[in-house]
Amino acid sequence: MSVLSDERPIGFIDSGVGGLTVVKEAMRQLPNEKIIYLGDTARCPYGPRPAEQVIEFTWQMTRFLLNENIKMLVIACNTATAVALEEIKKSVDIPVIGVIQPGSRAALKASKNGHVGIIGTLGTIKSDSYRLEIQEKAPETQVISLACPKFVPIVESNQFASSVAKKVVSYTLATLKNKKIDTLVLGCTHYPLLRPIIHHVMGPDVTLIDSGAETVSDVSALLDYFDLNNLNRTIIKQHQFFTTGSPKMFKDIASDWLNIDSLDVTHIELGGK
Amino acid sequence: MSVLSDERPIGFIDSGVGGLTVVKEAMRQLPNEKIIYLGDTARCPYGPRPAEQVIEFTWQMTRFLLNENIKMLVIACNTATAVALEEIKKSVDIPVIGVIQPGSRAALKASKNGHVGIIGTLGTIKSDSYRLEIQEKAPETQVISLACPKFVPIVESNQFASSVAKKVVSYTLATLKNKKIDTLVLGCTHYPLLRPIIHHVMGPDVTLIDSGAETVSDVSALLDYFDLNNLNRTIIKQHQFFTTGSPKMFKDIASDWLNIDSLDVTHIELGGK
Repeated sequence: MSVLSDERPIGFIDSGVGGLTVVKEAMRQLPNEKIIYLGDTARCPYGPRPAEQVIEFTWQMTRFLLNENIKMLVIACNTATAVALEEIKKSVDIPVIGVIQPGSRAALKASKNGHVGIIGTLGTIKSDSYRLEIQEKAPETQVISLACPKFVPIVESNQFASSVAKKVVSYTLATLKNKKIDTLVLGCTHYPLLRPIIHHVMGPDVTLIDSGAETVSDVSALLDYFDLNNLNRTIIKQHQFFTTGSPKMFKDIASDWLNIDSLDVTHIELGGK
Repeated sequence: MSVLSDERPIGFIDSGVGGLTVVKEAMRQLPNEKIIYLGDTARCPYGPRPAEQVIEFTWQMTRFLLNENIKMLVIACNTATAVALEEIKKSVDIPVIGVIQPGSRAALKASKNGHVGIIGTLGTIKSDSYRLEIQEKAPETQVISLACPKFVPIVESNQFASSVAKKVVSYTLATLKNKKIDTLVLGCTHYPLLRPIIHHVMGPDVTLIDSGAETVSDVSALLDYFDLNNLNRTIIKQHQFFTTGSPKMFKDIASDWLNIDSLDVTHIELGGK
């Protein structure tokens, strides 16, 4: 219905490769949109870092993408969303979306027995954002949170299908078994790469919520609401990926996960460690 | 994560009882929110009316609800969305959501073979809004549109489960059979009340999209985005329903559809016919 077309890219930021799970869903649901991605691999994981530092790093990534003239910013990282979303959303003049609200909403929709598990990084679990968000809307919901600090390093080192991964996931999640939860939020965008193993460990009766994939529905709703869709498909757009770490390692994981051979990956420097 | 709570109601408008299919989903997904509904039953159906008149009627409904201090307006009527959404959205200072964009998006997600059917009122089909919206995002999609002017009167007269309904739906949709469509958008919020019959006629291989139910996901995303959720559940809220027609007839259909016995339904006058 609109006659306007906004051809600027949508920006995605993450501490590393985790946000690619959001990008994959965005490519599927929004095939007209150009994506520009920045993973701060050199300083990953964000999970154990103090909140002030995560906020600072998130601002650095945000400013980099604002310079690339993005029309919307997706903070495709739960740790960064938990501590930096509200501040950045208030301060920049494009729509900014995090992954925690969409993930929380999906968990509330999915759970039938009102017992929801959350797994995430140390930072995300410490922020208690998912529990607050969920209980804000449904105070009677029982929320069990568990930090899984070993998961991100496994994914970033491209070992997410290894036998080590199986052992670590099984050992870490043991405490969530027999806890009555019927829904488990993958509260870190890296975790969907471990989804088959997590599914195997938790069993078929636990619904896994991919907070990143849920986020793309919100991206789509806001593109419509703010009239920001790209309607011009005659200009072929090449997605762009930036990493503060090794482009080779990033490309290996990204090509595999996104199922694209020729990815445009560039190394950049953001700041100190 | 928010500390703000917005206890104002969400407003829903429709030409009659059709918007109740959206309200039903809103009550399920947003149990904390107070709903205020206005159905212009006395002037229903909107479908055959000229666009200018539908715009005027929609403005009358909008002004009535703005006086009731709503925090968001849902135009839960496809005919009104098609002709009045953009103008009203631009003119009022609360978020305004229509049903066509969410329905179009859901259809694109659901269709595997790229052949999508749209059924709606004369006005909606004449506006071609669904086809434009869908092809804007996926130009190669084949869209077949069909006006079903007899459906709304059947629903408004509380005959949506009758043998007459079965005959009319079967006869009307015959032309859509053997058209390769794998997805059919119920492009009128009245039609979900005919859903069992439509499903029976179209068969199990055609996915039915309830544009209204899809809209509630957008409502939820925008409540989050604009920080408009009601977090205060200690104040019990009674939903309010207004109709320009017979409160008795409205109450019969609404109580049945929403499965609520004690509905607060009030007759109001909006303007001329």
